[in-house]
Amino acid sequence: MRDLYNDQLEAIIANLVSMTHTVRAAVEQATSALLEADADAAETVIAGDKAIDEARERVEETSFELLATQQPVAGDLRMLIAALRIVADLERMGDLAVHVAKIARMRMPDRAVPPALRPTIANMAETAERMVAETARIIADRDVDAALALEAEDEEMDRLRRSMFRILLDEDWEYGVEPAIDLALLGRYYERIADHAVSMARRVVYLVTGQNPPHYE
Amino acid sequence: MRDLYNDQLEAIIANLVSMTHTVRAAVEQATSALLEADADAAETVIAGDKAIDEARERVEETSFELLATQQPVAGDLRMLIAALRIVADLERMGDLAVHVAKIARMRMPDRAVPPALRPTIANMAETAERMVAETARIIADRDVDAALALEAEDEEMDRLRRSMFRILLDEDWEYGVEPAIDLALLGRYYERIADHAVSMARRVVYLVTGQNPPHYE
Repeated sequence: MRDLYNDQLEAIIANLVSMTHTVRAAVEQATSALLEADADAAETVIAGDKAIDEARERVEETSFELLATQQPVAGDLRMLIAALRIVADLERMGDLAVHVAKIARMRMPDRAVPPALRPTIANMAETAERMVAETARIIADRDVDAALALEAEDEEMDRLRRSMFRILLDEDWEYGVEPAIDLALLGRYYERIADHAVSMARRVVYLVTGQNPPHYE
Repeated sequence: MRDLYNDQLEAIIANLVSMTHTVRAAVEQATSALLEADADAAETVIAGDKAIDEARERVEETSFELLATQQPVAGDLRMLIAALRIVADLERMGDLAVHVAKIARMRMPDRAVPPALRPTIANMAETAERMVAETARIIADRDVDAALALEAEDEEMDRLRRSMFRILLDEDWEYGVEPAIDLALLGRYYERIADHAVSMARRVVYLVTGQNPPHYE
């Protein structure tokens, strides 16, 4: 019985890692949809969100069942609570990738991002993807040091977002209101994806140490 | 022992209701800050967020302690899991009210919202506040019917947001890029506050019935 239980706990971790990879791929494809006006990529992200939602439901059901039947304490209880929170983050990140893909789709066959901001958006997307990939590793290895370091990486995203606003609000901005609104929202979506990666990493710290890390805000 | 336990469960519900009222007041004050360029209101919302975060930590600690020591099953287990999710929603709603207050503060002594969009923003804010107030009642009464009805109210928010975009993108828009970006983000923040209210109501359905309601999306 206890062996099955431990297998189920490990399966939850494996599911979280796998979902995190799926979300990273969704962010990557949404960015292709956006920067290349790639309609297939946009549809793949939008249709693929259902699988992320279903994976979340499976992790929730298993976690709840273990909470109800195994009455876990200490580290196992923290693990199950952390898993419930991490899947909620992952579901939101999937939704945010869908928002990016939908802005891309709305402007097709044009590209939503004017040339002046392609490098900034590409950098934001890379930062977000790198942070999500790092989070998958942090969960798999329960790596507290890497989890604590991830919060610092979020500053790169803030820097990119400020740089984007400088370009949008410059008097030389020649693309009008609609792309400016798209970009403000896109910047927000990538920033939120990075925030959720940080949030997931914080939950790993809690899961391992039993303490929430301090906020660096 | 069991009496203390039941008192603690009831205290968690009471804390959630009280936090929901606090969040509703924060949304109201953030909107005053925004529409009246009221600096005191903005500072109150920004400074007040710490109390919401601390209330969340207290609910989390109590819930975790009860999960660890009482090994609840069935309805009590669902209640504690729902409480952990609801406080996460409330914390995010508090953050979103802070985002609104910060946009207001950034444009002071001017008003961030041009006259053409004051009625729309006022309507969005009222819709969000009404939904949050309704959610407090839904939690207090564990009112499943009202929880299911709340999702329909979210459509009003979608309608207002579409109407806002029509004004921003109209060729008669005369206020330039900066207010358009502010408004796109403000619309997003109010919409997310409403989304979190719906999410909280859904968790009450789960808490009472043991089933997640179907998605109306």
